Amino acid sequence: MKPLILLTNDDGYRAGGIKALTKVARQLGDVLVVAPVDGQSGMSHAMTVKVPLRIEKRTEEEGLTIYTCNGTPTDCVKIALDRLLDRQPSLLLAGVNHGSNSSSSVLYSGTMAAAMEGCMCKLPAIGFSLLDHTPTADFDPYLNIIRDITKTILANGLRTGTCLNVNIPKISPADIKGIRICRQAKGYWKEEFERHVDPAQREYFWLTGDFCNEEPNAEDTDEWALRHNYISMVPVQIDMTCYQSIPNLKKLFKST
Amino acid sequence: MKPLILLTNDDGYRAGGIKALTKVARQLGDVLVVAPVDGQSGMSHAMTVKVPLRIEKRTEEEGLTIYTCNGTPTDCVKIALDRLLDRQPSLLLAGVNHGSNSSSSVLYSGTMAAAMEGCMCKLPAIGFSLLDHTPTADFDPYLNIIRDITKTILANGLRTGTCLNVNIPKISPADIKGIRICRQAKGYWKEEFERHVDPAQREYFWLTGDFCNEEPNAEDTDEWALRHNYISMVPVQIDMTCYQSIPNLKKLFKST
Repeated sequence: MKPLILLTNDDGYRAGGIKALTKVARQLGDVLVVAPVDGQSGMSHAMTVKVPLRIEKRTEEEGLTIYTCNGTPTDCVKIALDRLLDRQPSLLLAGVNHGSNSSSSVLYSGTMAAAMEGCMCKLPAIGFSLLDHTPTADFDPYLNIIRDITKTILANGLRTGTCLNVNIPKISPADIKGIRICRQAKGYWKEEFERHVDPAQREYFWLTGDFCNEEPNAEDTDEWALRHNYISMVPVQIDMTCYQSIPNLKKLFKST
Repeated sequence: MKPLILLTNDDGYRAGGIKALTKVARQLGDVLVVAPVDGQSGMSHAMTVKVPLRIEKRTEEEGLTIYTCNGTPTDCVKIALDRLLDRQPSLLLAGVNHGSNSSSSVLYSGTMAAAMEGCMCKLPAIGFSLLDHTPTADFDPYLNIIRDITKTILANGLRTGTCLNVNIPKISPADIKGIRICRQAKGYWKEEFERHVDPAQREYFWLTGDFCNEEPNAEDTDEWALRHNYISMVPVQIDMTCYQSIPNLKKLFKST
């Protein structure tokens, strides 16, 4: 029996990124897509608790079933695992995201939250992102790369509690120097809220911002890899404990 | 000049938890509260990008200013830091959350996302939670404990890139055995979606679930501490890299 591959994303089921990922996954197994009806970018690990979830079957053909869900990427994974699967999937793929999820963006990303959700349920999981946030981004040049990475993980699995955050630079595949295994760069979004005034003279704000890389020269980071024409691959763990802080805190709080 | 303390939560500005936290913070400094208008539980690190943000000043008195924001806890922190502060705060406090944020709940928690957001902006940050999810939870018995922890961190700071996840068991303070510095327990939510049918005969689902602790006997975990009448304190880092996976992945992908 072919392996079953579960797919989701945060840009919605119509997005080019998930269509590209579906093409890849179908070469490797049976595919179940459960994706948000609409874009859910920046939703992080949000779950839907105030309104009920609805699912709709959009496609059913040999080797491919597509559902949409009115919730977040996390909801999609949860409802797929609880309600829509008749056998255990071998892999969860999320994306391909339209735009980067490198550095601290991993914390805000709906795509990576879906991968972490899979990981919590003991599935090997990969989040893919292309550094092109436009809705018309062309994923076709990168399909072979995505397939090769997926194939390797399908064959070898991942450490329990760990998933992969793969970012692909928007350059010709011929110019990609290879895959670099990296750590998450230290960086943050420097927000600037744009102030507007509505017709009733009430002010409102739009979130905008620039990413600040705090360590542009650190060659072991994902940001460095992407700027130097590599694919970045960061193993992401769901254990967020800062073990190095424990001894000092024990002293500070006179705790055993 | 008194230190400035920034407060937010995910249960909304009317919640008992943030009122309790405000009482504590006022004993230690000037306080700026920027909290969601409505409850935002389970919103994780979500940001609002589809609708504009609006803020409203609700209270202004000596040492205390309260704003509400129509966004998520992450939005509240971001807009506070960009638009509402005239000086650098010394600390960010989030909570007190109505209900636990131990183990993997840290990944879904809006309270802890707000703490991480502060941490990304170089603020010492603490997320507090009481193991009582009811809207009428009584926080008063725990105010001294919360004040002592806050005072210690205000005086000593935290490692950069790290914030604290503090959970308080719902027992009489006299029965609390102390603070335990812990790691995040391995655990996950076993979802069960409750199926309902609407008057138009269309099905919909409500998310429910039970927490499964995968290591109930591990004495160094937050779950163990809470079940044994301790306050759990987990240092949480925003670097999610699984460093232990890097050597194996380098071999697998023949990467440098």
